[in-house]
Amino acid sequence: MNARINATSSFVEWMQHIQSTMEVTLDIYLPSITAMPASLHQAMRYTALDGGKRVRPLLVYAAGELFDAPEQLLARSAAAVEMIHVYSLVHDDMPCMDDDALRRGKPTVHIRYDEPTALLVGDALQAQAFVVLSDLADEQQAARQLKMLNLLAQAAGSAGMCGGQAIDLASVGMTLSLAELEQMHRLKTGALLRAAILLGAYSGKLLSVDEAAALEMYSDAIGLAFQVVDDILDATADSATLGKTAGKDAADNKPTYVSILGLAESQALAEKLRGDGHRALEQFGDKARRLHELADLIVQRKA
Amino acid sequence: MNARINATSSFVEWMQHIQSTMEVTLDIYLPSITAMPASLHQAMRYTALDGGKRVRPLLVYAAGELFDAPEQLLARSAAAVEMIHVYSLVHDDMPCMDDDALRRGKPTVHIRYDEPTALLVGDALQAQAFVVLSDLADEQQAARQLKMLNLLAQAAGSAGMCGGQAIDLASVGMTLSLAELEQMHRLKTGALLRAAILLGAYSGKLLSVDEAAALEMYSDAIGLAFQVVDDILDATADSATLGKTAGKDAADNKPTYVSILGLAESQALAEKLRGDGHRALEQFGDKARRLHELADLIVQRKA
Repeated sequence: MNARINATSSFVEWMQHIQSTMEVTLDIYLPSITAMPASLHQAMRYTALDGGKRVRPLLVYAAGELFDAPEQLLARSAAAVEMIHVYSLVHDDMPCMDDDALRRGKPTVHIRYDEPTALLVGDALQAQAFVVLSDLADEQQAARQLKMLNLLAQAAGSAGMCGGQAIDLASVGMTLSLAELEQMHRLKTGALLRAAILLGAYSGKLLSVDEAAALEMYSDAIGLAFQVVDDILDATADSATLGKTAGKDAADNKPTYVSILGLAESQALAEKLRGDGHRALEQFGDKARRLHELADLIVQRKA
Repeated sequence: MNARINATSSFVEWMQHIQSTMEVTLDIYLPSITAMPASLHQAMRYTALDGGKRVRPLLVYAAGELFDAPEQLLARSAAAVEMIHVYSLVHDDMPCMDDDALRRGKPTVHIRYDEPTALLVGDALQAQAFVVLSDLADEQQAARQLKMLNLLAQAAGSAGMCGGQAIDLASVGMTLSLAELEQMHRLKTGALLRAAILLGAYSGKLLSVDEAAALEMYSDAIGLAFQVVDDILDATADSATLGKTAGKDAADNKPTYVSILGLAESQALAEKLRGDGHRALEQFGDKARRLHELADLIVQRKA
């Protein structure tokens, strides 16, 4: 991260800087279309490049600022987390899952290409995430990098994102309690957001117990807030604004915060969680500036 | 690896010892059915446990003997490679790919459970492979372990197994040259077999240029031999013997060694490759005993 840009820039400037850095980083770390098999590589690039808010990379870089993490590890972490996120979207959109035709304002991979390609694009992106994060950054820090990789793999697997997906699938048409809904989202989206934050922090150093606990609290708060706001937007925004099909949850009869709590109480919950996120960061002082700003962004976003 | 068993035992005894060790190792490294989400974990265990010849774990342990590799790293490597292999079978069997109902003599995951479960089982098994291989074995060897993980991720991704799958899909109904067929298999099955051999060797130490070159030659030979024999068995054996649907390739109009070379010439090619594999091992002397025996097994197997 360019320190000058960071010290003097507004949040929007910082965010745009990270987002454009991510495009370059992903372009480098995704397989080239001049390599075999070109069609698979083209499809991987179609879905991973030029789209998305890059919320997870933003969290990686913001958490990296807490401990002045080196760019090398931040770039690998941000690219790896984003590739896991993108692969999960490709598989979620497939006909046997959510059967969605639109994502980030573009046709989904199985629509633009075909189903087998979508399956392989997802599989290959997951592998590529681990290719990137296992690319040795600093011989002296290899054990820490291995720990970061372990953290990401746990967050991606059955104890994290895939596990949350499985619970989500099993819950269609069922009445979930608020606690059950929370547990599902803690895995489905929360685990990877948490991994993004921890990977950013670990890019700087191993964490003390206090530091880890604070970042867990922040992650829990903004992870849930992210989902509550997703549910609010799904119920209130239109497809053009979201870049994906709006109103899907209600149509699919999926339990959401809005269906359980109602709209006003969901909005109040998002605000409460935003406050929890801010409070969790107290010990980090000014170094946590971007994490504070991201908590606000996550709750106040319109898409 | 128990040295006593190895020094005095026959190949069959050694093989059975590794196979039963693998069941225990996989049982430990797969998520427990007492953990949430139980149904996903059950499906992961259904497909990964109690089945298969465990060819890749056998290669890991056989290559590990070259350099007296420690059990810790061998177990992680073998379990990780096998999880990647198993996940690829689960996804390959799905309706949008080969649409196969039988695997290792049991109903495939999407038949026994459902399609979304098969998708998630595969995704979660891939993540679990990297969880296992990123579990720190020896702080002093963390950089080597990271390199091993990088090697496995490359072999699993678009430059390896997934890339081979993509070429395979694109080749259905097409006339492939022998060179194109070889290139496809080099990625589709060869890359992971090669990774198994290299991971076993790297579990012992970093390789010299000579050692790496010899193991690459061995891998190339037995990797292709494996596929040639697969094609011969698909054309000549029955489903009960194979534990999967026989005659699929011809039915799917897929190019195979038998369809291009004929049966007799395919058998001659498998024998030639077996010889190439043996010759590649010369510099390792007696330490390569199990790798020699595995080259024979791969060519002489009946299923």
